Amino acid sequence: MPQGKVVTVPDDGLSTRQRRNRPLLVVHTGEMKGKSTAAFGLALRGWNQGWSIGVFQFVKSAKWKVGEEEAFRALGRVHEQTGQGGPVQWHKMGAGWSWTRRPGTEDDHAAAAREGWAEIRRRLQRQAHDLYVLDEFTYPMKWGWVEVGEVVEVLAAREGHQHVIITGRDAAPELIEAADLVMATTKIKHPMDAGQKGQRGIEW
Amino acid sequence: MPQGKVVTVPDDGLSTRQRRNRPLLVVHTGEMKGKSTAAFGLALRGWNQGWSIGVFQFVKSAKWKVGEEEAFRALGRVHEQTGQGGPVQWHKMGAGWSWTRRPGTEDDHAAAAREGWAEIRRRLQRQAHDLYVLDEFTYPMKWGWVEVGEVVEVLAAREGHQHVIITGRDAAPELIEAADLVMATTKIKHPMDAGQKGQRGIEW
Repeated sequence: MPQGKVVTVPDDGLSTRQRRNRPLLVVHTGEMKGKSTAAFGLALRGWNQGWSIGVFQFVKSAKWKVGEEEAFRALGRVHEQTGQGGPVQWHKMGAGWSWTRRPGTEDDHAAAAREGWAEIRRRLQRQAHDLYVLDEFTYPMKWGWVEVGEVVEVLAAREGHQHVIITGRDAAPELIEAADLVMATTKIKHPMDAGQKGQRGIEW
Repeated sequence: MPQGKVVTVPDDGLSTRQRRNRPLLVVHTGEMKGKSTAAFGLALRGWNQGWSIGVFQFVKSAKWKVGEEEAFRALGRVHEQTGQGGPVQWHKMGAGWSWTRRPGTEDDHAAAAREGWAEIRRRLQRQAHDLYVLDEFTYPMKWGWVEVGEVVEVLAAREGHQHVIITGRDAAPELIEAADLVMATTKIKHPMDAGQKGQRGIEW
């Protein structure tokens, strides 16, 4: 399997080593659910490197994507018990952000989304995690609940070695522009086209 | 976030429930490494459902993609120790298939690939796993080591409820045709374009 080849060497005054270790802003966008799946697959590698993983799901329902959540919580316990891998924190807007005392966020999604982003900003400031997965975070930006310009500014100014992965459809052009790596997942063929509904273990 | 909508209801004599539970052949193809990452992300969901996961990596080097492997091996141990999730088996061509006595396969990749496929065929026959990840398996087909027509035939005839995910570039048209779900990951922007080399935790 071919290793990726470097096409151009930029004139940015950085050594290959410095560039190699630059923290990345990754955006997974496109039409399918594969976006989050690929982000969590990537997070497996970070976990194995011993990184602190922070997942923030900007979804309305508390029940979404329980498969990945359970698996990562299990990996977090592996770390606590054996020291293998890294610590894992998993926070969900729909269940009420775990750092607040409020039980749920059914009433005001916009306020809940802003609260989530404010906490991420604080954590970036104190370099709380090595890898942040901001799942479905494009939507609060799309709907104007969180200002994309501010997000890009905060991410650009983050210190240390914090990787950030943002998933969701319709990523804003400013976000694409700011990102180091942008991936899009395209459906070529899907069972729903043939009248099949989602099934346990595959869709969630 | 919208649930997938069924576009047409096929006239195949199956109930929605029967169609819903049909085992899937999934192909992740396209230009980037996100293919395998997304397949392993999907396997997290299956693990959480208590499925038996069998991973078969058709890669030449024993060192590839160690991040996901270590994480899934940890999840397999979680299952053994606590009963959570499902059992995990991880086999790698480059390390010498673990069911053979031979130490490595550096000499004859074609024979090693055929040996891997023969074992998968036997496991499908006895319904050994609920989810098979055949990582980079498009290449042995592309290079003519394993006959794509036979693969499609064996997969079409598999019994029970065995899901199969195949990853790799240049999936054969017959395989695409036979698949229920085909996903392609497209690079919109990649750090290697800007002269950055791969880094630990992100690329492997």
